[in-house]
Amino acid sequence: MYKAGLIGVTGYTGMELARILAFHPQIELTHATSRQEAGKKIEDLYPFLRSCKIGSVCIADYNAMSLAKECDIVFLAVPHGTAMKSAAELTACAKELKKQIKLVDLSADFRIKNPETFETWYQIKHEQTDLLKQAVYGLFDIYEKEIKNARLIANPGCYPTASILGLYPAVTHDIVANDIIIDAKSGTTGAGRKAQVSSLFCEVHDNFRPYSIGGKHRHTPEIEQELSIAAQKEIFVSFNPHLLPVERGILATIYAPLAKNISLEDIHALYLETYARAPFVRVLPLGQLPETRNVRGSLFCDIALALDKRTHKLIVTSAIDNLARGASMQAVANANLCLGLPLDTGILHAPLCP
Amino acid sequence: MYKAGLIGVTGYTGMELARILAFHPQIELTHATSRQEAGKKIEDLYPFLRSCKIGSVCIADYNAMSLAKECDIVFLAVPHGTAMKSAAELTACAKELKKQIKLVDLSADFRIKNPETFETWYQIKHEQTDLLKQAVYGLFDIYEKEIKNARLIANPGCYPTASILGLYPAVTHDIVANDIIIDAKSGTTGAGRKAQVSSLFCEVHDNFRPYSIGGKHRHTPEIEQELSIAAQKEIFVSFNPHLLPVERGILATIYAPLAKNISLEDIHALYLETYARAPFVRVLPLGQLPETRNVRGSLFCDIALALDKRTHKLIVTSAIDNLARGASMQAVANANLCLGLPLDTGILHAPLCP
Amino acid sequence: MYKAGLIGVTGYTGMELARILAFHPQIELTHATSRQEAGKKIEDLYPFLRSCKIGSVCIADYNAMSLAKECDIVFLAVPHGTAMKSAAELTACAKELKKQIKLVDLSADFRIKNPETFETWYQIKHEQTDLLKQAVYGLFDIYEKEIKNARLIANPGCYPTASILGLYPAVTHDIVANDIIIDAKSGTTGAGRKAQVSSLFCEVHDNFRPYSIGGKHRHTPEIEQELSIAAQKEIFVSFNPHLLPVERGILATIYAPLAKNISLEDIHALYLETYARAPFVRVLPLGQLPETRNVRGSLFCDIALALDKRTHKLIVTSAIDNLARGASMQAVANANLCLGLPLDTGILHAPLCP
Amino acid sequence: MYKAGLIGVTGYTGMELARILAFHPQIELTHATSRQEAGKKIEDLYPFLRSCKIGSVCIADYNAMSLAKECDIVFLAVPHGTAMKSAAELTACAKELKKQIKLVDLSADFRIKNPETFETWYQIKHEQTDLLKQAVYGLFDIYEKEIKNARLIANPGCYPTASILGLYPAVTHDIVANDIIIDAKSGTTGAGRKAQVSSLFCEVHDNFRPYSIGGKHRHTPEIEQELSIAAQKEIFVSFNPHLLPVERGILATIYAPLAKNISLEDIHALYLETYARAPFVRVLPLGQLPETRNVRGSLFCDIALALDKRTHKLIVTSAIDNLARGASMQAVANANLCLGLPLDTGILHAPLCP
Repeated sequence: MYKAGLIGVTGYTGMELARILAFHPQIELTHATSRQEAGKKIEDLYPFLRSCKIGSVCIADYNAMSLAKECDIVFLAVPHGTAMKSAAELTACAKELKKQIKLVDLSADFRIKNPETFETWYQIKHEQTDLLKQAVYGLFDIYEKEIKNARLIANPGCYPTASILGLYPAVTHDIVANDIIIDAKSGTTGAGRKAQVSSLFCEVHDNFRPYSIGGKHRHTPEIEQELSIAAQKEIFVSFNPHLLPVERGILATIYAPLAKNISLEDIHALYLETYARAPFVRVLPLGQLPETRNVRGSLFCDIALALDKRTHKLIVTSAIDNLARGASMQAVANANLCLGLPLDTGILHAPLCP
Repeated sequence: MYKAGLIGVTGYTGMELARILAFHPQIELTHATSRQEAGKKIEDLYPFLRSCKIGSVCIADYNAMSLAKECDIVFLAVPHGTAMKSAAELTACAKELKKQIKLVDLSADFRIKNPETFETWYQIKHEQTDLLKQAVYGLFDIYEKEIKNARLIANPGCYPTASILGLYPAVTHDIVANDIIIDAKSGTTGAGRKAQVSSLFCEVHDNFRPYSIGGKHRHTPEIEQELSIAAQKEIFVSFNPHLLPVERGILATIYAPLAKNISLEDIHALYLETYARAPFVRVLPLGQLPETRNVRGSLFCDIALALDKRTHKLIVTSAIDNLARGASMQAVANANLCLGLPLDTGILHAPLCP
Repeated sequence: MYKAGLIGVTGYTGMELARILAFHPQIELTHATSRQEAGKKIEDLYPFLRSCKIGSVCIADYNAMSLAKECDIVFLAVPHGTAMKSAAELTACAKELKKQIKLVDLSADFRIKNPETFETWYQIKHEQTDLLKQAVYGLFDIYEKEIKNARLIANPGCYPTASILGLYPAVTHDIVANDIIIDAKSGTTGAGRKAQVSSLFCEVHDNFRPYSIGGKHRHTPEIEQELSIAAQKEIFVSFNPHLLPVERGILATIYAPLAKNISLEDIHALYLETYARAPFVRVLPLGQLPETRNVRGSLFCDIALALDKRTHKLIVTSAIDNLARGASMQAVANANLCLGLPLDTGILHAPLCP
Repeated sequence: MYKAGLIGVTGYTGMELARILAFHPQIELTHATSRQEAGKKIEDLYPFLRSCKIGSVCIADYNAMSLAKECDIVFLAVPHGTAMKSAAELTACAKELKKQIKLVDLSADFRIKNPETFETWYQIKHEQTDLLKQAVYGLFDIYEKEIKNARLIANPGCYPTASILGLYPAVTHDIVANDIIIDAKSGTTGAGRKAQVSSLFCEVHDNFRPYSIGGKHRHTPEIEQELSIAAQKEIFVSFNPHLLPVERGILATIYAPLAKNISLEDIHALYLETYARAPFVRVLPLGQLPETRNVRGSLFCDIALALDKRTHKLIVTSAIDNLARGASMQAVANANLCLGLPLDTGILHAPLCP
């Protein structure tokens, strides 16, 4: 049984991590931290975990040394900027203890390889560029081998997970030209568990709205970085997100001009082949389309392909659960891999539908 | 007081027409028809209209002559194919009675000017091409003058209303190139009031899904027709709809490559100017974005503009209430105009928000 | 045109008041106040009111003298405790100006006639007992005459409106015994527009929860006061509220032991008779049941009656829109009456359904 | 690995059974039947199960002999009336094959021990009274021992599960008098997966409504039967259901007059003691209240206690997932027990929250 720590238990990603680890057969959450909630038990904060073993874990103040001493792996579910600090502290403590601990960072701090790009988009200086160099981007469908050997994993963003998986086979095979549009829609857990008027039930329910339109969203450089690596050339995307009145779920509708004369059937075959050894990417049969509920609570990414022959576009629709695949369950999958466990340990469930 | 008939009271557009006419000061719904519900009162079918005068109107079987005899205006809220038949019958009866009656057709039967295009997309033959020639496309922000003189009004589709209004100033001023993508999202009233599993609460709620992806949706030719007229050249769009877990509301996110070097401020000024005399189009200040709830239950179309400078695209977001502006309230506005009443008679309400 | 002021425009009741007054033909909102939002226009805060005349009203800091000077009527949409202070200040200013202004208080401050009862339940001292004596309880279906002559109207609470109207005929006619249970369910606008985690979309959506179970809710004494007056004896109720994942709407299911041998048909006749001159109470035909959507955005209260013969209970179900009938539209109705206008001026709309 | 058959895969209970069995470590769904969908694979009907082993199971027409031959256990997820026929046929086939098969019936056919009571409430004759005598009521928190030895298990109804568990300790200890009211609210999966207008998204969403008010719901005799057994005297309840705009979840608010002078703390202690060996009943600490989301997708029943001291009532709130604990997951738990497996085999997951 590996011992896990969780820094930042009060947000939705922390909450989901606690949920997933509640019945994990080989990773036990033994330490959870939060400034505001220190002293409470997890079940006081999250009554749905009452009577689960994890429910009686006491939430503590953050203490790097104690985490480093007692944990095999630590999940960082804190805001960007804070995460890089904690990662550095935990690394220093582990060094002092002559011990290795694995880190899975759910923030954006170690996702962008170029610190200048990071600084441009996140408006803060990257202070841990040494750690940044060691970090592995945790998209296990692509980087499984690297993740197995990683000490610090940059868990991918939710929108990037859906977008990159949706485009990866197309860009690696030069099927599409560079003028790519991603129209993405996310459930409201993506907005976090902060008390703010714009996230109130009565401001979101029976409503739909765009935000950060026009290439302003911070997930843009992360998507571009990974697609550029895959394409071996610089790729630009116009990424535009919207807020859905659902709790979980992202659906990205991706429009890419066809770069060559190729049939939908052939593209489909390429996608199937690319993901043949990726058990959590489900390339749907032609004619079917994804729905967010089909992946709810699971690690699956459902991908469908269509051609708009009149306008020569490949249209990829890609659905994930933003909280599970787009954050915490992906983090646990990465934890599994870097601890030497099978990818799907403790997270192989059927989606909750309906 | 004008007397109105409504053919097809059982769908959501019929229901919404009844709702809107319930307190209209100059149009009185006196006849409502439905095959399944004949014999009931409107308030039996729609208890929310109990104790309103309209609630006691008896639903009858469809009878063209009786409608023609007793009504000044008839709304057709029946499926395409059926609507053209009724329009022809009502016209014939009116002729026989030597009387003029106005028709507002909420189906697609008289929207597409080219009968061959209609037949290609709707898979039925257009049997009333004479009437088709007389029909006026009922987008009053653009065709107000023609509607005032019309006898037969083709009420616009819901997606086309949002899409055309969103693009009209851009295409009339040659701001954008032809490679236009419309990523549209609609509330579920758009799927109709038919008993079908795919529209059940538990199949739609907390879910989001695309449909008719790849240029297959029948609203495509309607959008292209009106944009082509505005642009005075042939325009193609890739139109892709999605189903939202909300009752009312369409939001279209429109991506159009910039055709010239023009600032966002200048585009915004052009939009404001174009719609200066269109009281129900609200061009939002730069930096604001529309939300479906902001137009709920109203005739407003909210339009916002953004530029993605990195990829040289104009991104228009356009929101309407699919049932009100996209169907029945637009029909009443058109009825007002063709009966000689002010456009906003009986339909000037603040949106219901929250 | 009467001039109205609104103290507290930022909550849902203030928002709804602005919405309702936007197109009121005889009351014009000219002053709106808010500490946090002073300086903004109403349309900046509430974009759904853009292009309505009311949208351009500037939100100001609260200033009792300026309100008293320029308004004929002032709506108080501030928390209890604050409302009584403002009411006193406005009264003093009006006196100084030798002018009469009408006050409609949407808080609880003037609802409870007995200041000790108020203090027990609200845990603050009532500092305006003189004003309290002048206040009229604004349930116009019962107190229309008093409201017409009132200067200070205590606008009823949302739950009390549904509960009292549901029981009033039964208790006035001694049909039911004292052991009454009210199981009430409210939409989330009832929880206010405060930024708090428990009101976040992801904490309310696809969820249902009770709160204040066991006679702890502050609406209890308000319901008991009015029922006791109607019954001319002391009535106790067990009032138990629940939070619905809907925006607007209250449905109260009321269980009352039958006190006499009387048929359902006779009880129904008594309800119809009692409310014969109450145009906004709709006593449903036997066999029908209310739904919150049937009253959405309206002043209607829908009431249905059933008997559980096996357990000898009258079961009343009563539905209102908590924000409209349960707060702001009721306030406007009361304003209409006390200004000498017909009750339904500017608020006679069909419910928004769906 | 036990082999399981499922008669009736197309409803929500069948769908949920397939979902739960998808990754069950000891029961494999090998046969699924449906008249309308025969010939399809399960993953064609339920795309969320794609790439799970169960997804490739072919749906067949119902054939009692083939099910009896090849299955160790059969789940009946068909309407009442049909279930008793199938149970009889399967029993006869098993006899012929000299083989024992276990049956878990999710319909109401074997829940009511008295066939006359069944006939009164369900309006059909009970044709399998012999089987009825053998059936065990599958509420494992109470009848675990009987279930382990059962051949035919009557899986409890959803409302009865929440109601009986909520009242069981109180009635067994004579804490409450007989005048019990159950105000129950259910998610819409409870209405089934039939195509009907009243279950459409736009008829349920942002709405709340009662139904079968006044002791008319068929779950009444089931609740009364079990409470009467527990109390060892005849118990009557007034059971009144409502439809929630959520997918899963029942919350019952139960009002029972106190029959003796006992403190809330003592009642709480009795509840804790009664359920000390019932791992899936969570008696909440005093002061906490259940929420439907806290049990979503799980076998938990969350129970809270409150006293209304002013009116001398015990108020129990009890929450379950109607589809999981109220139907299919309870059925799998019963299957586990009667096959000799630990109760929680394959169904021990944390609730999906949010």
